[in-house]
Amino acid sequence: MSKGLPRRSEDYSLWYNELVKKADLAENSAVRGCMVIKPYGYAIWEKMQAALDGMFKDTGHSNAYFPLFIPKSYLSKEAEHVEGFAKECAVVTHYRLKNDENGLGLVVDPDAKLEEELIVRPTSETVIWNSYKNWVQSYRDLPILVNQWANVVRWEMRTRLFLRTAEFLWQEGHTAHATKQEAVHETVQMMNVYADFAENYMALPVLKGLKTESERFAGAERTYCIEALMQDGKALQAGTSHFLGQNFAKAFDVKFANKEGGAMEYVWGTSWGVSTRLMGALIMAHSDDNGLVLPPKLAPFQVVIVPIFKSNEQLAEISEVALKIKTDLKKIGISVKFDDRKMHKPGWKFAEYELKGVPVRIAIGPKDMKNGTAEVARRDLLEKNSMPLGDGFTQSVSSLLDHIQETIYNKALDYRKSHSFMVDTYGEFKKIINSEEGGFVHAHWDGTAETEGKIKDETKATIRCIPIGQTQENGKCVYSGKPSKGRVVFAKNY
Amino acid sequence: MSKGLPRRSEDYSLWYNELVKKADLAENSAVRGCMVIKPYGYAIWEKMQAALDGMFKDTGHSNAYFPLFIPKSYLSKEAEHVEGFAKECAVVTHYRLKNDENGLGLVVDPDAKLEEELIVRPTSETVIWNSYKNWVQSYRDLPILVNQWANVVRWEMRTRLFLRTAEFLWQEGHTAHATKQEAVHETVQMMNVYADFAENYMALPVLKGLKTESERFAGAERTYCIEALMQDGKALQAGTSHFLGQNFAKAFDVKFANKEGGAMEYVWGTSWGVSTRLMGALIMAHSDDNGLVLPPKLAPFQVVIVPIFKSNEQLAEISEVALKIKTDLKKIGISVKFDDRKMHKPGWKFAEYELKGVPVRIAIGPKDMKNGTAEVARRDLLEKNSMPLGDGFTQSVSSLLDHIQETIYNKALDYRKSHSFMVDTYGEFKKIINSEEGGFVHAHWDGTAETEGKIKDETKATIRCIPIGQTQENGKCVYSGKPSKGRVVFAKNY
Repeated sequence: MSKGLPRRSEDYSLWYNELVKKADLAENSAVRGCMVIKPYGYAIWEKMQAALDGMFKDTGHSNAYFPLFIPKSYLSKEAEHVEGFAKECAVVTHYRLKNDENGLGLVVDPDAKLEEELIVRPTSETVIWNSYKNWVQSYRDLPILVNQWANVVRWEMRTRLFLRTAEFLWQEGHTAHATKQEAVHETVQMMNVYADFAENYMALPVLKGLKTESERFAGAERTYCIEALMQDGKALQAGTSHFLGQNFAKAFDVKFANKEGGAMEYVWGTSWGVSTRLMGALIMAHSDDNGLVLPPKLAPFQVVIVPIFKSNEQLAEISEVALKIKTDLKKIGISVKFDDRKMHKPGWKFAEYELKGVPVRIAIGPKDMKNGTAEVARRDLLEKNSMPLGDGFTQSVSSLLDHIQETIYNKALDYRKSHSFMVDTYGEFKKIINSEEGGFVHAHWDGTAETEGKIKDETKATIRCIPIGQTQENGKCVYSGKPSKGRVVFAKNY
Repeated sequence: MSKGLPRRSEDYSLWYNELVKKADLAENSAVRGCMVIKPYGYAIWEKMQAALDGMFKDTGHSNAYFPLFIPKSYLSKEAEHVEGFAKECAVVTHYRLKNDENGLGLVVDPDAKLEEELIVRPTSETVIWNSYKNWVQSYRDLPILVNQWANVVRWEMRTRLFLRTAEFLWQEGHTAHATKQEAVHETVQMMNVYADFAENYMALPVLKGLKTESERFAGAERTYCIEALMQDGKALQAGTSHFLGQNFAKAFDVKFANKEGGAMEYVWGTSWGVSTRLMGALIMAHSDDNGLVLPPKLAPFQVVIVPIFKSNEQLAEISEVALKIKTDLKKIGISVKFDDRKMHKPGWKFAEYELKGVPVRIAIGPKDMKNGTAEVARRDLLEKNSMPLGDGFTQSVSSLLDHIQETIYNKALDYRKSHSFMVDTYGEFKKIINSEEGGFVHAHWDGTAETEGKIKDETKATIRCIPIGQTQENGKCVYSGKPSKGRVVFAKNY
């Protein structure tokens, strides 16, 4: 069944772009680099938000909201941060338009120039730590466990829907602590929350690890990350959690009187975020040449019921059964759409919901009505079965959804296993990295930025992470031959 | 009990500002006109969002997301819209910063000037209708029922927390329809949704009505609104719903092939929104000299339990009872905070939760433990009672919360009734409008913008709305003496 989608094997990149558009997830806007997230795509993002937000709250965080604009001078306060973020960004210089006196239409009013330019936030550490300064006096005011759901802007030159856009949506957690230990614990905890979300909701297996110094967040002392493997063998960084040390506290003079004797100490910080980029990961990890494949836990609707009828009488009879199924499924928390539109034929609907990745499709026709059955199709394996509409039907559908969630995860895990390689020579390294299959290459590295840089220049592969719980294993750097104590993970990446 | 709050009767405006800050709802940021919404304030906004979002979805709407930036030229496309919105706004002119060659630090890179300036959205009709152009071909593509939760920026000169800020959070619904009738129906429906939300969640009685031409949204053919009365006798516009006619469809060339014979027709539009301004309305309508008064349906936590103890043994015993109460209340959907912190005394906690408007406070001390009772205090009336901790306790607390919700609403309704006046002479009109008490003045008006403008100039009162279901009543304009067919509602306003 062709939806006019290119095959993944022919042109993975084009397949992705077309899928995002044809499945009504997002489109480019007329504003350079900014996307429109369409209702179906946004509904998936809402499911992600709800799950993540619940997990943040369960770990003690509250939401808040900080300004969109950052005074230019704030960006300069943390030395490394300014190098990382004060480059390609949207700069507000004026606050008024006016009608041109010579009839040239709407122009910027030169009299309305800002004294200090404002930057549309690329990330909010600076503006948030500037507030924390006033929130913290003593150890009693700590920890601050705050998250923000917001839009941010980074003026990217080459953009791709969801994966890299000038404006994107994200959450950014910003926490402040009395001790280093507590802040490190928070950083690791949030990496684990992200991994939990990726694996249990997105059905996406991830590697957890530390970034090398060159891949670290600008202003952080350590960056933890989760890394996923896409179907083209490229890695995608799906979330990061930064231990900021006392860097932002020092830059914004955030101190507290400690519990012991009231001495003033700098606060310890973390920040952590995931973005609409996760939408890209979700799409690329699971979907196939027929369209989207959505894990049931994130599908806007998990089940669609399609009636097959010729007359209004038939439709009326089928509707009664369908609405009963819908009600029963809703009772146990399963979201259902009953598509009884007459303007489209069943075949059209089948193709549409396949394209949109609805996990389970139930079709009911006159023959089913006679037999007391329904045809139940699962999107992930494209299999269908006739099932009796008896007492156990609702439970069967529920189990099927659980099973689909598991199957999708296992498929992605199998893919990762078959695309993970232990490599000990640079020749082998290059062969795998440059192959069409790609994958994660576990190899020894001498720990220097120099070697990392040379490998990147020569192969485009980067160190995705130093895995957590890395096995101690003496070896030799795949590039320099110098000693190494454990393997790190290389891949080409998004 | 003084929290250092000014009294409302002394300085209402200062009382409001101080309350917003002391109750930890919001604060001014270092960025001119932009506020920080603090966790406690944001938690109330989240409750509002959740309730409204549910109501939007129940009426068939989906969420989506459109770009933050609007090309300058878009604003000019709808003639009236440009007059209303292309004035005081944040203008992005450049997309890069660089380090100054002369060591002056971070400067705007003059080489990175945008060809066309981008405006940070003050409202999104233009950028959204520019997308709708591609979404609509035939009647089959209609209606489009979309809502967006977003931040917007209007460069206000005088700002006040929640009531008027340069950046604020809101939702904006944007719908497209095949017929005028359907679009008008949608407009009215959303005004009713807003009124329902204001009355049943915010406990805020509102007048529903139509704006006069001079108070209408720039680009709309009709603007419906809900208007609430604050405790200082000033009106606050709490939500608007606009029937846009075919104005934006014409400006952005959005046509559809109709059902009848495929002839191309312009689409009919609506837009509607409420914002974080509702936070201001909520605070100003119900709170008192002791602090916030929150309706239970929007309180971040509805019940707080405060243990009164001297020893750790006492605390352990009380905690057992308190956690049982908490569990029982949570089971029936009531949110509870158990504040067993030792760093603060019970008296401090009582004052804190009074200031923060927690609807019900349960205190349990050693005497209560002996008697099997708890002290239950309600925030709205500042009354407390000893209640037995028996089987009916949970249900009693639940009923009390319902009763508080109702009481707060009725109090506001009584206030509005006692501050609504039928006025037939301009002398009386001015006397009431200029009095400290203020209020809604129902008076006849001749229907001209001229009279409306003169009254505004002379008294600062504006026509808040032409009420829906306005009683047909022949009369004479309170200002000009010309004939009128019904009363409209005047007030000073926020």
